[in-house]
Amino acid sequence: MKEQSSNSEWRTSLTRISPGKIEIRGVDVTRLMREATFADGIYLMLKGELPTPAHSRVMNAILTSSIDHGLTPPSSLATRTVVSGGNPLNAAVAAGILTIGESHGGAIEECARMLQAEAPEDASAVVAAATVLVARYRDEKKRISGFGHRVHGTDPRAVALFEIAAEEGLDGRYVAMARAIEDALEAASGRRLPINVDGAIAAMISEMGFDWRLGKGFFIASRTPGLVAHAFEERTRERPMRKMTNFETVYDGPEDG
Amino acid sequence: MKEQSSNSEWRTSLTRISPGKIEIRGVDVTRLMREATFADGIYLMLKGELPTPAHSRVMNAILTSSIDHGLTPPSSLATRTVVSGGNPLNAAVAAGILTIGESHGGAIEECARMLQAEAPEDASAVVAAATVLVARYRDEKKRISGFGHRVHGTDPRAVALFEIAAEEGLDGRYVAMARAIEDALEAASGRRLPINVDGAIAAMISEMGFDWRLGKGFFIASRTPGLVAHAFEERTRERPMRKMTNFETVYDGPEDG
Amino acid sequence: MKEQSSNSEWRTSLTRISPGKIEIRGVDVTRLMREATFADGIYLMLKGELPTPAHSRVMNAILTSSIDHGLTPPSSLATRTVVSGGNPLNAAVAAGILTIGESHGGAIEECARMLQAEAPEDASAVVAAATVLVARYRDEKKRISGFGHRVHGTDPRAVALFEIAAEEGLDGRYVAMARAIEDALEAASGRRLPINVDGAIAAMISEMGFDWRLGKGFFIASRTPGLVAHAFEERTRERPMRKMTNFETVYDGPEDG
Amino acid sequence: MKEQSSNSEWRTSLTRISPGKIEIRGVDVTRLMREATFADGIYLMLKGELPTPAHSRVMNAILTSSIDHGLTPPSSLATRTVVSGGNPLNAAVAAGILTIGESHGGAIEECARMLQAEAPEDASAVVAAATVLVARYRDEKKRISGFGHRVHGTDPRAVALFEIAAEEGLDGRYVAMARAIEDALEAASGRRLPINVDGAIAAMISEMGFDWRLGKGFFIASRTPGLVAHAFEERTRERPMRKMTNFETVYDGPEDG
Repeated sequence: MKEQSSNSEWRTSLTRISPGKIEIRGVDVTRLMREATFADGIYLMLKGELPTPAHSRVMNAILTSSIDHGLTPPSSLATRTVVSGGNPLNAAVAAGILTIGESHGGAIEECARMLQAEAPEDASAVVAAATVLVARYRDEKKRISGFGHRVHGTDPRAVALFEIAAEEGLDGRYVAMARAIEDALEAASGRRLPINVDGAIAAMISEMGFDWRLGKGFFIASRTPGLVAHAFEERTRERPMRKMTNFETVYDGPEDG
Repeated sequence: MKEQSSNSEWRTSLTRISPGKIEIRGVDVTRLMREATFADGIYLMLKGELPTPAHSRVMNAILTSSIDHGLTPPSSLATRTVVSGGNPLNAAVAAGILTIGESHGGAIEECARMLQAEAPEDASAVVAAATVLVARYRDEKKRISGFGHRVHGTDPRAVALFEIAAEEGLDGRYVAMARAIEDALEAASGRRLPINVDGAIAAMISEMGFDWRLGKGFFIASRTPGLVAHAFEERTRERPMRKMTNFETVYDGPEDG
Repeated sequence: MKEQSSNSEWRTSLTRISPGKIEIRGVDVTRLMREATFADGIYLMLKGELPTPAHSRVMNAILTSSIDHGLTPPSSLATRTVVSGGNPLNAAVAAGILTIGESHGGAIEECARMLQAEAPEDASAVVAAATVLVARYRDEKKRISGFGHRVHGTDPRAVALFEIAAEEGLDGRYVAMARAIEDALEAASGRRLPINVDGAIAAMISEMGFDWRLGKGFFIASRTPGLVAHAFEERTRERPMRKMTNFETVYDGPEDG
Repeated sequence: MKEQSSNSEWRTSLTRISPGKIEIRGVDVTRLMREATFADGIYLMLKGELPTPAHSRVMNAILTSSIDHGLTPPSSLATRTVVSGGNPLNAAVAAGILTIGESHGGAIEECARMLQAEAPEDASAVVAAATVLVARYRDEKKRISGFGHRVHGTDPRAVALFEIAAEEGLDGRYVAMARAIEDALEAASGRRLPINVDGAIAAMISEMGFDWRLGKGFFIASRTPGLVAHAFEERTRERPMRKMTNFETVYDGPEDG
């Protein structure tokens, strides 16, 4: 554990700035600009070391997978609503990021927490562990995060991510556990609820050794450019203060107080 | 110009969602995950077409260049302040993004606007155009955005970005105009004020054909992962509600109203 | 003009904090708690002096007038969208405030700026000044902010606010100018476009001597408690991640890139 | 429990909008503007009924008490940092509100939750209940929220609020429990840790029958006008992008990766 900052001296292990030189986690930023992808820079920033080629490929795929999901997610809606009120791009993107919570993008964090706590090191123990886990969640009437999707029966991003992981030899215990949970869920409920992109990202960041508490961070880094595009399209294509709602309203509060 | 949305039917040219399929600007997201870098996905998202290899390399370099600049920028400070109040990562990153305005990261937009308006198509006219531009800004007592840096005499990120641009044959009229402005500023003031990373990004997004109004979007996409890292470090290393300020306060308002 | 802060010493004329004592603009906060309304405290905070009884009454009426306008404004929608994503109340209210811009609540600022620049001191000059102003805006194809409302033919809040102003003797040159603009707009267009609540607030804060650049601040202070109520109702009444959109989507971007 | 909204029909018990009429919780807004203070409007908005005169006085005092606490709280700092980056007032206030979390303003919510769960109806049982409570928190090594203040030995706002409550006959079981906890804390630790303004607000909103989950909402409504004043002072008095930090930085991350 690193020493804490004092009030007069702040400590950081992230970036060292000196005149003419910027080092990200000890790596000169100009070397990164020349030799690495942006996703590698993000990996380095969050992990403190450069990715292997396999990790680099998976990192790029993770970040690309969630860059946008159209007009209907809360983040797109909030971003466009802020533009429509007549505000700049940064305020619009900030509002989009504010929607990313327990129920929107939060499954990465929750699923990674669960996988990191529950996936056994011994491959032969995975099926039993998943069965016990599913039973426990059912007893506690809790939902397992990262499985099923409101639009996609099978989430194509999860499929692609696991294929890439397999090609790169990164399908270890967390992927195995995720797969075993899929089977255990089906065995318990009679219905297949395939892992979704959040669950697949959770498994992959666990394979690569990231702290589960960074889960929402991956989603935020990935979705932010998509929100920039939504803000820009709203500003350049739609008129200001357009009607953003299309529901009837019913008032059911007190009468004439 | 695309048709506007109606209230019952929203239109977008960004992403098409159908069960089991996600297409970003017409490209299947699973193809992107397999074949492209995250920076390519961002380029596609913002531009509507995939980058050439040269554009891809420059795009990666742009996004990597501004991923972090340590503890002191407004965005780092606001992000850490929100964590310190006891708030989640997304709220902290949103606050960091809210600081990105005219004076923090805004030089990209302003410099790109200027370059796109003023850079002559004819290379032989560049020096004269830059001289006229610098004189006009001096007359109007306006600062030219994108030149000089409070820490770096020469900004190493700008140097690296222009080197990469030259290697990739992307040093066209906007880079030439930026260079000519550097010279004209020196001729007018007697002091060299080298182009900084914001100015270099402005030149490069202009070379690649991006609308200058996306300027802050590049900075936001680049810096967001850095803000995630600051939020995470603050949460895991520092105690909540630590003293974030280290200044004396002087009250100089009315006495005893 | 007050002295600027230095880096080691920050200056403020707002509040003096010492152990056991808090003075807002020179007034002990416990005296305010005993003797003043919250609206008086806001007036003091923003203006640096306590309101007269007439100003106090108008200030309370201004702040009450805009406390909520139902489910459809951008601010309500963004606030509820953030709650629906699974986020805390402060993040939800912040997103609502982010929507308050040029097109949502911004008319107060723009109308106050115009009134403070254009209202003649001499009452007999008001009608001519309004006629010239309306003609100029028409020539420049600009809309005059603060007149007309998408829901209310006559905005009942504007009516009430001007009645209260008249009762309190606060209907001076800015109210006269606002009235004259209503008439001049009708004379020029043949259609009555009555002043709305934003315009009426703009006139009243001008009468009370507030800087027009505080315009959005009045709206923000007024609407924030309404957004708290929306966030709370969304959390306690609706399920998380409910479908916030009810539009069809049409993709009209590139095919198969 | 009210019916939930459907996707095509949103339900609310807050405000009814019809052409020419706005009713807040069943009360015509123009009646509120004429007859009530802004704090009464907030009470109505959050509670669904108008306050009694006693509740009105306490509500005004609560909201006035926390309107500002100078330059050093996280909310002031974040607000000014966003202005300094060159951003509009609403973005600055939003960032300030984002800092209001578990550790900044959050004590109201946590203390109200505790008081509403633990304060016995029977006055004679209060002392014993407080003793048990304090012992339990000590066993669980948890801090009791709402007691002690980093600047004020005795928080003058808490004193004033309890005096007003007593004058208005609103010092019931929650105030009694808060007082008993003060004594039990002193008995257990040998040190007096007086209730602070957050604890006093928690007791008073409990006396008035508010849900503890609205706790942060009271703080947000109260502090927002203060943040408006900070944003305005920063914009009109200080230069853009001023140095907001005054600490030395120490890098202690990896060397030359």
